[in-house]
Amino acid sequence: MDQLLIYIDITGTFAFAISGALTGMNKKLDPFGVFILAFITAVGGGTLRDALISSRTAFWLIDPEYAYIVLGGTVFAILFRERMNYLKKTIMLFDSAGLGLFTIVGVEVGIQNDLNAFACLAIGTITGTFGGVLRDIFVNEVPVIFRKEIYATITILGGAIYLILRQIQINPIITQIIPIITIITLRIFAVYYHWSFPVIKFIDKENS
Amino acid sequence: MDQLLIYIDITGTFAFAISGALTGMNKKLDPFGVFILAFITAVGGGTLRDALISSRTAFWLIDPEYAYIVLGGTVFAILFRERMNYLKKTIMLFDSAGLGLFTIVGVEVGIQNDLNAFACLAIGTITGTFGGVLRDIFVNEVPVIFRKEIYATITILGGAIYLILRQIQINPIITQIIPIITIITLRIFAVYYHWSFPVIKFIDKENS
Amino acid sequence: MDQLLIYIDITGTFAFAISGALTGMNKKLDPFGVFILAFITAVGGGTLRDALISSRTAFWLIDPEYAYIVLGGTVFAILFRERMNYLKKTIMLFDSAGLGLFTIVGVEVGIQNDLNAFACLAIGTITGTFGGVLRDIFVNEVPVIFRKEIYATITILGGAIYLILRQIQINPIITQIIPIITIITLRIFAVYYHWSFPVIKFIDKENS
Repeated sequence: MDQLLIYIDITGTFAFAISGALTGMNKKLDPFGVFILAFITAVGGGTLRDALISSRTAFWLIDPEYAYIVLGGTVFAILFRERMNYLKKTIMLFDSAGLGLFTIVGVEVGIQNDLNAFACLAIGTITGTFGGVLRDIFVNEVPVIFRKEIYATITILGGAIYLILRQIQINPIITQIIPIITIITLRIFAVYYHWSFPVIKFIDKENS
Repeated sequence: MDQLLIYIDITGTFAFAISGALTGMNKKLDPFGVFILAFITAVGGGTLRDALISSRTAFWLIDPEYAYIVLGGTVFAILFRERMNYLKKTIMLFDSAGLGLFTIVGVEVGIQNDLNAFACLAIGTITGTFGGVLRDIFVNEVPVIFRKEIYATITILGGAIYLILRQIQINPIITQIIPIITIITLRIFAVYYHWSFPVIKFIDKENS
Repeated sequence: MDQLLIYIDITGTFAFAISGALTGMNKKLDPFGVFILAFITAVGGGTLRDALISSRTAFWLIDPEYAYIVLGGTVFAILFRERMNYLKKTIMLFDSAGLGLFTIVGVEVGIQNDLNAFACLAIGTITGTFGGVLRDIFVNEVPVIFRKEIYATITILGGAIYLILRQIQINPIITQIIPIITIITLRIFAVYYHWSFPVIKFIDKENS
């Protein structure tokens, strides 16, 4: 990965670790459980990505630095927990940051493994979303991706913008910043203004 | 894979996508959530299979066609949703079709990766069942494989029939059709007539 | 693996299979469901380990013997179920045995795949704990690793002792026995005496 992408990856890891640690404290896990939930949230998406691509060993088994970043995010979340009013919104903010950052990392890994455009988008979406899905499954909540606020749609849109910008080869910083900002902004707006797709009307005749 | 097996694989993908899409609509997911649940259901079994075999990258990362098949199944389920009375039975029917079709695909992948007979059966069972297990876990229901109607037993039986027929090298169409029909028929009969194994009597002395 | 480690691996498989089978009977699964839950519990940790390391195919696809060991553990649990009073304690005992045994196996697999010390500990912890986590998720209980009794801490401590003893190259039997005994003993003491870390105080201002 180039230098900029490494910073993006580290920042995403830090952000997801905080969202996981806050969730763990909210569920009254002990400090070690808080760290483990932060770890699962932060590395879950990239781990599934690496499991799906046969040639890749899970990245955090090769670079132990990720564990320190997660530890840093966990300690940060513990120290500043009292300043984080409106917990669910704070978790959502850090989750959105991680989502935007990791999606781009994932799409780029897809490109570097010679995957086709659809597969790059899919692997980007998985990298961006699966850590949060695992976090929610482990604490028995509905996975964030199935909640109303067009979570996956935004992720795929951001990934597609990245693919297109990268194709036309403009400045790499712009190529990476625009889709990241797009995902984070749209996600926050979607939650704030309750954007959602209409549900398909469906009358189950068994129960009516 | 030979041509016939590709058709079987496509039909299984379509059937599981419908079962996942119907489940998603039943759980009031938005259209994108319905598609994602259909996708997870349709590719989940083959994905775990490919993750377990070290040399294989997840098949749908290589062949983007699978996403279109899932999209087709999802649209089909949405369009014809009002004609599908008795939803749970309809889901079960499509689930059974996917089960029979994918089990054979999975056993064949095992054979082509030089796995032993036990491993071929196991990988066939995983390919056939795991998509439905994921579908159920994601919507918080008891995984279909742990429900009463001898689900896994039928799958393994069908896989074993395929292994034997393939060994004695009769016509490949017959070799594939017989176990598929066996699995689908037995599964439907098992649900319809409530076939089940007796539960082991077990008195927990803590609670009595 | 050397001969001694193979025995440790077999014993761990047997112990986890019993813990899974007892859990399955307690949840009123049919005999086949009991076997499948025993199988998932017994091979789950090693399977995730092998999925994370790109060069490894899941061990039980290569050695079908594991299925027989799981079958043996399941039959054992069924036959002696009435002698196992105080079920939760019995499940905990076999879970602890599997935990101690598998952690060492996992750390050793890490060493033999040239992973760094952190990664060896992580892969050992995953090998030791993930089967039990899957068992609990499948029957809808809080995963054992998130319960109070410092489960993961003990595992990591035992793995670290193994790494150190192995480094100083004393007798291999001692190198393996000491951390196994440490993990099992500490785990049982932790449950018996309710050892736990204090939970971090955290006032959610949204709900107060």
